[in-house]
Amino acid sequence: MRVVLLLSCPDQPGLVHAVAEFVLTVGGNIVHAEQHVDPETSVFFQRVEFDATSDALPRDEVGERFADVASRFRMRVDLRFVDDRPRIAVLASREVHCLADLLARWRAGEISAEIVTVISNHPDHAALAEFSGVPFHYLPVTPDTKAEQELQIRNLLHASEVELVVLARYMRILGPTLLSAYPARIINIHHSFLPAFTGARPYHQAQRRGVKLIGATAHYVTADLDEGPIIAQDVTPVSHRDSVPDLIRKGRDLETVVLARAVSAHVEHRTLVFGNKTIVFG
Amino acid sequence: MRVVLLLSCPDQPGLVHAVAEFVLTVGGNIVHAEQHVDPETSVFFQRVEFDATSDALPRDEVGERFADVASRFRMRVDLRFVDDRPRIAVLASREVHCLADLLARWRAGEISAEIVTVISNHPDHAALAEFSGVPFHYLPVTPDTKAEQELQIRNLLHASEVELVVLARYMRILGPTLLSAYPARIINIHHSFLPAFTGARPYHQAQRRGVKLIGATAHYVTADLDEGPIIAQDVTPVSHRDSVPDLIRKGRDLETVVLARAVSAHVEHRTLVFGNKTIVFG
Amino acid sequence: MRVVLLLSCPDQPGLVHAVAEFVLTVGGNIVHAEQHVDPETSVFFQRVEFDATSDALPRDEVGERFADVASRFRMRVDLRFVDDRPRIAVLASREVHCLADLLARWRAGEISAEIVTVISNHPDHAALAEFSGVPFHYLPVTPDTKAEQELQIRNLLHASEVELVVLARYMRILGPTLLSAYPARIINIHHSFLPAFTGARPYHQAQRRGVKLIGATAHYVTADLDEGPIIAQDVTPVSHRDSVPDLIRKGRDLETVVLARAVSAHVEHRTLVFGNKTIVFG
Amino acid sequence: MRVVLLLSCPDQPGLVHAVAEFVLTVGGNIVHAEQHVDPETSVFFQRVEFDATSDALPRDEVGERFADVASRFRMRVDLRFVDDRPRIAVLASREVHCLADLLARWRAGEISAEIVTVISNHPDHAALAEFSGVPFHYLPVTPDTKAEQELQIRNLLHASEVELVVLARYMRILGPTLLSAYPARIINIHHSFLPAFTGARPYHQAQRRGVKLIGATAHYVTADLDEGPIIAQDVTPVSHRDSVPDLIRKGRDLETVVLARAVSAHVEHRTLVFGNKTIVFG
Repeated sequence: MRVVLLLSCPDQPGLVHAVAEFVLTVGGNIVHAEQHVDPETSVFFQRVEFDATSDALPRDEVGERFADVASRFRMRVDLRFVDDRPRIAVLASREVHCLADLLARWRAGEISAEIVTVISNHPDHAALAEFSGVPFHYLPVTPDTKAEQELQIRNLLHASEVELVVLARYMRILGPTLLSAYPARIINIHHSFLPAFTGARPYHQAQRRGVKLIGATAHYVTADLDEGPIIAQDVTPVSHRDSVPDLIRKGRDLETVVLARAVSAHVEHRTLVFGNKTIVFG
Repeated sequence: MRVVLLLSCPDQPGLVHAVAEFVLTVGGNIVHAEQHVDPETSVFFQRVEFDATSDALPRDEVGERFADVASRFRMRVDLRFVDDRPRIAVLASREVHCLADLLARWRAGEISAEIVTVISNHPDHAALAEFSGVPFHYLPVTPDTKAEQELQIRNLLHASEVELVVLARYMRILGPTLLSAYPARIINIHHSFLPAFTGARPYHQAQRRGVKLIGATAHYVTADLDEGPIIAQDVTPVSHRDSVPDLIRKGRDLETVVLARAVSAHVEHRTLVFGNKTIVFG
Repeated sequence: MRVVLLLSCPDQPGLVHAVAEFVLTVGGNIVHAEQHVDPETSVFFQRVEFDATSDALPRDEVGERFADVASRFRMRVDLRFVDDRPRIAVLASREVHCLADLLARWRAGEISAEIVTVISNHPDHAALAEFSGVPFHYLPVTPDTKAEQELQIRNLLHASEVELVVLARYMRILGPTLLSAYPARIINIHHSFLPAFTGARPYHQAQRRGVKLIGATAHYVTADLDEGPIIAQDVTPVSHRDSVPDLIRKGRDLETVVLARAVSAHVEHRTLVFGNKTIVFG
Repeated sequence: MRVVLLLSCPDQPGLVHAVAEFVLTVGGNIVHAEQHVDPETSVFFQRVEFDATSDALPRDEVGERFADVASRFRMRVDLRFVDDRPRIAVLASREVHCLADLLARWRAGEISAEIVTVISNHPDHAALAEFSGVPFHYLPVTPDTKAEQELQIRNLLHASEVELVVLARYMRILGPTLLSAYPARIINIHHSFLPAFTGARPYHQAQRRGVKLIGATAHYVTADLDEGPIIAQDVTPVSHRDSVPDLIRKGRDLETVVLARAVSAHVEHRTLVFGNKTIVFG
């Protein structure tokens, strides 16, 4: 049994020792540990991954056994098991590349999670979802039916016991119904190196500005559009020769890779949201 | 004798042929040629580099001989000779890395130009300039003396017959006196991937936003601060571990390389400004 | 009608002019032109892309009309039409990521070609090929049946009028039957930055050597294993933390992108093989 | 007082706990900690950085106080203090860029070390060293005087109490005199992405092979030329247009950055050599 503890608390001496002592006491062995102290707020963050046998430490007692350390240091604790596979819903609109890439990686065993549903406001991706063995839900939307459609989505997510929502080029702005249900558990891919080119048609904006590189940004979704905590970013060089369609084509490779990197970080329990930032452990 | 023609005109058939015919007629041989048509405006751009002997084509007659082609196609023509070495002034404030890098490259023969003067509003870099064999001018400035100091700079640039002004982390905003005297001939390095983080203290802004990469942008200076035509950009990855001083340190390597790349593109006659964009030939 | 001429010949004055004159004479307009002179051998290479109407220049007369220029300058000429879509066969073994990526790009309209057949020595990818609408051929092979299987492949390629063979992690060494039939028309992806780590299990070699970056190389296949002309390469950083399975996983993204880049360069008629090198026009 | 412990020992439960307990016992506070277990050999590596007051833990007693933990777990221990600044000698031949870059960074306060001597087999860099305030030693060498010159170098290094030797494009192969005196304490920059293009003139080799990227590698020097443990590597894209002089010019920026990165990792006590590999902590 491999356990991951994602911890945060006010920094003070003895934290690393207390966590290590807990692991030793329950007969475990630390296989990875990474920590960080935010210099401005003196908040301590740690990700500890340790092996333990279920005999010495029954799975459903880990949290309880750690409670003493947690309360002593006023820790916020996220407890995960490496063999837990988060249940993912992927939302997509017309563009297929991010959806197709996530499904291909998942079929190939690259993503430590279960993709349990694909939802789209277009019917086009039904065959791809079916080929991948994932239920597909076509939920069209108009400005008039937006609130209702979002409710349908939320019900679907609840029914499928979804833990992570991935917006794979889903081109609708989410409302409070979904945002409040999945705090720091909705990942979006924006096709620019944020904070440059927020909002609509970033490749058109990039072409107009004459930048020499374009980018993609994966971030947790918050109520402030394109302002959520950034998980991953990357860029690729472009030149005056690149028309908007060229930028769109080059950008696709960025979007798929950056989104996949962010989803992997999340499902491998390597992310911790702190204010408007994301700590991504290695 | 190696000649560079930087051309722009409305696109039409026969342009490449007319230029190639001119080169053939004067006994020349094209060694590089690159072209681009802006799809929105149908403007044709070309950079042609050719060898010719001064016997067949006296140096001071090239422009005249080409005038016929130029007027037939309503071309804007920039005529350069590869052995012309543009005269450069470098302006710097306290930070020394960009200035030191440009001087080191120049001493090593990497920059096809002459650095003829170093101007600073701080006295610190006098020894470095002297070691490099370049006259140093210390021109301090206060809010009250800004206009006067800028006039001094302009006079110095005129006296040194400067053709290109490089702002190597010069932290003062230039006024109309200099901007109007050197249109598309002042290169600045901004320490962010523009258009993200314009204005002051971009590394602080980057740290606050929690981006996963930082950048640097070299651009021609215009009256709109940080909005001029971009010549070169690059980025480097950062993480939650990086404090503002870490970003500043990592950013330095970006700034020096990006600025040097832009200066090289300019002095090798590979840049053409078009509206708010820069065409950079390879 | 958009025409591409890929030319090579001994360098001499007048080449650019002669080609431009030809285009003008047939009523065409050059939309892209790029050239290169190999400094050691003084061989001139050019890629010229021009628009012409079939009225002024019937499609099947282009070659004939250009023959005069070609023979005058002893040019090797490759004549292509942009709307010609080369017919591609993809060969794969067990690993699916490169095959899946190529098929996804092709379904999305990103590759200017037709994928007409998928051939594998394993049966696993039948469903994926079928989903993509491409005939799948399972041709198992043992050391005893190698020559026979290769003959089967060649017959399939001929029957499908294949012009380009893509080895998408096909783990068998090709014999002379195929190599001689498709000179400079078989593209392989090798999972290292060649010439480092030729041969088997390059990620294991990389891990043993302790390199700080891993790479992928797409190249034309020749009789010398891993020694053919390189079309595209890229790398990604790794560290001491990365086990061989980590390298394999990180390498997959490199392999798919680098192979796709090479295939695009080929089918967009941007590659010219010269000795053991590939000129890749922009 | 900030202390760095670089530890390695056979892996077993309780290691992290024991080190954390030690730090707590001496009244310290861990500010960074990173660990790694080599999966093949089950060797545990750790870098722990902690703050302590000299009152609670006198500087010259740290090692002694830790000896108990070290011996209990059979640890190899490297004990460093962050305010210790290793004394560096830089060796260079004709090419100046790496030497100039290191000196500029050092003058700017970017390198946590003291550059105490510059040694060269050419007289050219005397003025640069003098400008930087570093003693310069011109030690010419011929095949006949090689052993003797190396002895002179070693004596100079000893006299200057040098702890790290940096070969900044020093083009002579070191003999056993120096190698045995500075195990894992000589850093070389090789101008290729090793293991590709070992030996002489790697840019010529790269041009001949037609690679699409060139690289640079910083490594600890061992008796096997170009085979020592790699500390840092990077690459930059090139194309068919790049002649050997172009590669040399582009490579310079790689070499300076990669060498500086490796030197920083060493002097910040972030490297641990293990067999033929280097663990570089973040």
